[in-house]
Amino acid sequence: MARASQIEPAAAPGAEDALDTLVALVADDLQACNRLIVERMQSPVALIPQLAAHIVAAGGKRLRPLLTLAAAKLCGHRGKRHVALAACVEFIHTATLLHDDVVDESALRRGQASANALFGNKPSVLVGDFLFARAFQLMVEDGSLPVLAILSQAAATIAEGEVLQLATQNDTATTEEQYLQVVEGKTAALFAAAARVGAVVADRPDAEERALDAYGRNLGIAFQLVDDALDYSAEQERLGKTVGDDFREGKITLPVLLALSRGTEIEQGFWRRTLEERDQGPGDLRRAQDLMRVHGALRDTVERARSYGDAALSALAVFPPGPERSALAGIVEFCIARAR
Amino acid sequence: MARASQIEPAAAPGAEDALDTLVALVADDLQACNRLIVERMQSPVALIPQLAAHIVAAGGKRLRPLLTLAAAKLCGHRGKRHVALAACVEFIHTATLLHDDVVDESALRRGQASANALFGNKPSVLVGDFLFARAFQLMVEDGSLPVLAILSQAAATIAEGEVLQLATQNDTATTEEQYLQVVEGKTAALFAAAARVGAVVADRPDAEERALDAYGRNLGIAFQLVDDALDYSAEQERLGKTVGDDFREGKITLPVLLALSRGTEIEQGFWRRTLEERDQGPGDLRRAQDLMRVHGALRDTVERARSYGDAALSALAVFPPGPERSALAGIVEFCIARAR
Repeated sequence: MARASQIEPAAAPGAEDALDTLVALVADDLQACNRLIVERMQSPVALIPQLAAHIVAAGGKRLRPLLTLAAAKLCGHRGKRHVALAACVEFIHTATLLHDDVVDESALRRGQASANALFGNKPSVLVGDFLFARAFQLMVEDGSLPVLAILSQAAATIAEGEVLQLATQNDTATTEEQYLQVVEGKTAALFAAAARVGAVVADRPDAEERALDAYGRNLGIAFQLVDDALDYSAEQERLGKTVGDDFREGKITLPVLLALSRGTEIEQGFWRRTLEERDQGPGDLRRAQDLMRVHGALRDTVERARSYGDAALSALAVFPPGPERSALAGIVEFCIARAR
Repeated sequence: MARASQIEPAAAPGAEDALDTLVALVADDLQACNRLIVERMQSPVALIPQLAAHIVAAGGKRLRPLLTLAAAKLCGHRGKRHVALAACVEFIHTATLLHDDVVDESALRRGQASANALFGNKPSVLVGDFLFARAFQLMVEDGSLPVLAILSQAAATIAEGEVLQLATQNDTATTEEQYLQVVEGKTAALFAAAARVGAVVADRPDAEERALDAYGRNLGIAFQLVDDALDYSAEQERLGKTVGDDFREGKITLPVLLALSRGTEIEQGFWRRTLEERDQGPGDLRRAQDLMRVHGALRDTVERARSYGDAALSALAVFPPGPERSALAGIVEFCIARAR
């Protein structure tokens, strides 16, 4: 990506296809995983599958379970254990989405009405709890204590990241270090665990487990940095996507921290008024976007994402070349190429 | 308890001391469990131990972990595994309390400001998630897949019970069967699991596991039935305790179902207006209490609790007499004797 571009189309050719390539590579397993997800979100309490279907079946990218499926394949796993564990990963992810939307008071999720907007906050909290418990039941059925250790640790780290995000919200004194801690918790921990589990089911040496963990962690950070840049992107706005959610909530993300640290005193006053005091008027989001352009905040956030992406790619070097390694490498480009 | 009394003091002598007797019997283990709880609710994210301390340390009765400790002792367990598993049980319980209070919009918990009232709904949801994940980490450290199966199943069942409660709230067409399903989920499942885990750590035969499960399940139902009666108790009101929470929220509990099914058409209209339409005015709680007295609804709820209590006692019969069995039997009386 050319440094001068403000998150303009500059992705490597074919980055959009990388997800399709990965999906094609594990197509049967992904189908089996989706079937299992639908099967195991059932309950005699009808509201549970109703609400779960809304979010589970509403078609996310299944990025995290795809990591588990592809990593297991990369590591030569020949059984079917990775299918159920990929479903666990998606259940944990879905549970955190449900709770996130309650916490963020979001009205939309993936362009549709969010579960909390449609069903209310209360069932969203409780169905999140159910899916979380169901994830652990699936892991217990798989029977691997190392897998249980990895995913229970990830679940605790996610919650820590979410609480830290809440604690730093509306606080312009937040440091980059704290921001990264939030990102590592709320996003990267599950990416890392999802990939790592692939090596564990294949019974591969510790070095490969660590490599997949590093791949997932760096990919997850890159993914979140790009997400945080997209929330201020004029190009996204032009495409009809929602921008400005983080701004309205006063979330302190890297684009904000960069614009803030590079801004004049008057500009710093603007950020404090809008994010800390949450005193926002018409034109403020536009001004925030302008300040980010002036200070190259989005460009440099994506630049930073790219360096985490590079670290993710390096981590894959311990594995022999092949379609799985290429597909996982392609996902790095896919995540970063969204920033256009 | 005399049938004519309307939840009047009529408990077996010494029922109040039964909890003290149980606590004394496992005093060292309970102290170790409390230390572990405080130790393992720590996190670099300061808000987590702050909020957790508010609810964990705010002095519940620790009834559920006590069941695990006493059951393990009853089964002759000589190690220390039951201490960590008792802490898991309390973490799961605490996580559900945090989420319950968000769902019920409760301002009070154990007579103090609830965590959601003090810290807000958002951190309550997320710290609940953290404690739930931490419970699973502790179980993984213990390393028993059967224990993990029991407690992850209990966690899923609790969530199902809570969702069903939400679905039946404000619905006077709720059946007694549905009500019991709610109670078995939201309360009895964790009582059953807590007691059962005691037999599992002691590596006892399946019959003893099942006996402790039945003890815990029936005790839990009795406990909840008494709780539901207390929420309408004039005597509780006289003692300065809060009553009427269930009424205000329109929860359909056994006292309501009994008064409803025994009531005139005019009375049924009263219940529909107050609970279904949630149209409540001054004097309505008083009228609800009067109708329950007229129809013996609280008396018969406690009577029903007593029969579940008897089933809990019968379940203990497979164990030899001794101080542990007596203490667990005493807890049945303790739970029912609260109804005065």
